Amino acid sequence: MGGPEVERLIGLLAKLPGMGPRSARRAALRLLQEPETRMAPLAAALEEAARMVRRCSLCGNLDSQDPCAICADPHRDRSTICVVEGVSDLWALERAGVHRGLYHVLGGTLSALGGVGPDDLNLRPLLARIEAGGVAEVILALGATVDGAATAHWLSDRLRPLRVVVTRLAHGVPIGGALDVLDEGTLAAALRARRPAQ
Amino acid sequence: MGGPEVERLIGLLAKLPGMGPRSARRAALRLLQEPETRMAPLAAALEEAARMVRRCSLCGNLDSQDPCAICADPHRDRSTICVVEGVSDLWALERAGVHRGLYHVLGGTLSALGGVGPDDLNLRPLLARIEAGGVAEVILALGATVDGAATAHWLSDRLRPLRVVVTRLAHGVPIGGALDVLDEGTLAAALRARRPAQ
Repeated sequence: MGGPEVERLIGLLAKLPGMGPRSARRAALRLLQEPETRMAPLAAALEEAARMVRRCSLCGNLDSQDPCAICADPHRDRSTICVVEGVSDLWALERAGVHRGLYHVLGGTLSALGGVGPDDLNLRPLLARIEAGGVAEVILALGATVDGAATAHWLSDRLRPLRVVVTRLAHGVPIGGALDVLDEGTLAAALRARRPAQ
Repeated sequence: MGGPEVERLIGLLAKLPGMGPRSARRAALRLLQEPETRMAPLAAALEEAARMVRRCSLCGNLDSQDPCAICADPHRDRSTICVVEGVSDLWALERAGVHRGLYHVLGGTLSALGGVGPDDLNLRPLLARIEAGGVAEVILALGATVDGAATAHWLSDRLRPLRVVVTRLAHGVPIGGALDVLDEGTLAAALRARRPAQ
């Protein structure tokens, strides 16, 4: 329907995360019905973002400036680096607005099965940042997966000789989460890390 | 995060049907991480579709050719016109592959409350198509809503003097649908229209 141009647009929209063939058709139709007010601005925004946005050469964040706005911000605490797997994790932490230090984006996790070694990740630049001095704490905000834990372990080993405090995020019950839908690993971690009630 | 270009892209993606702020962020990030293979093709597809796709001057379908591929297809049955509210309904019927005739897209329904009258819709061109002759049946494939029913009623009145058979889609239980989740109106319609079991 609509000719090859429409089919191609639907095909590309359907590949976006969270979209499928059905929602891609609806989105394409909405765009086609408002070419001036919806389609053209989206095309322009995509082009501009593709042209402007680059990886930050310090931390690996994506931004239209390099160093990124976080690395360039004089008000951020430069003595604390929060290590994350991906930019989406960095964005999630920024939305929470609790970390006032810097970040380092690894671009994934070490994975023996997946054949991902230290040189496939943005790991050595992190060691170089810490070796350059001025860093007091490294917070490992990696996923609570096998590969995330292995990566945290590898990093802890490498960071220990550099005289830096290495911490990790707490495990526990999510705020607003019901207990009966949580997996046993989370429940066990939450119980072990129990704290005095206030 | 990511600068104004990224924020603008996320804002535009979030307005697509089926997307929200969270999925728009994920989609933007995926696009940003693959600017060459994902972002540029999507921008190009949007621009090409905006440039090429127009409303069919006969039926109101969206296509990169005018008349649209359906109106131009010599193998379609030109004596049957299926009247739909929107292009998405036309696409849905085409995917089902059961209608071999032509279409007419109204672009909405009459609505007393919404202030939508006959001249706000693609209604009079439909009457003109039928008055031009050669049409034996008009299938009203309008939504089973108050406004859809009112529009079907208005059209039936106008079409009767033109000596054309006017039909509507059957109501009933959707294929694969469970009875206990259906509303009472659908159940009543399905019961009234019951047919001999095979």
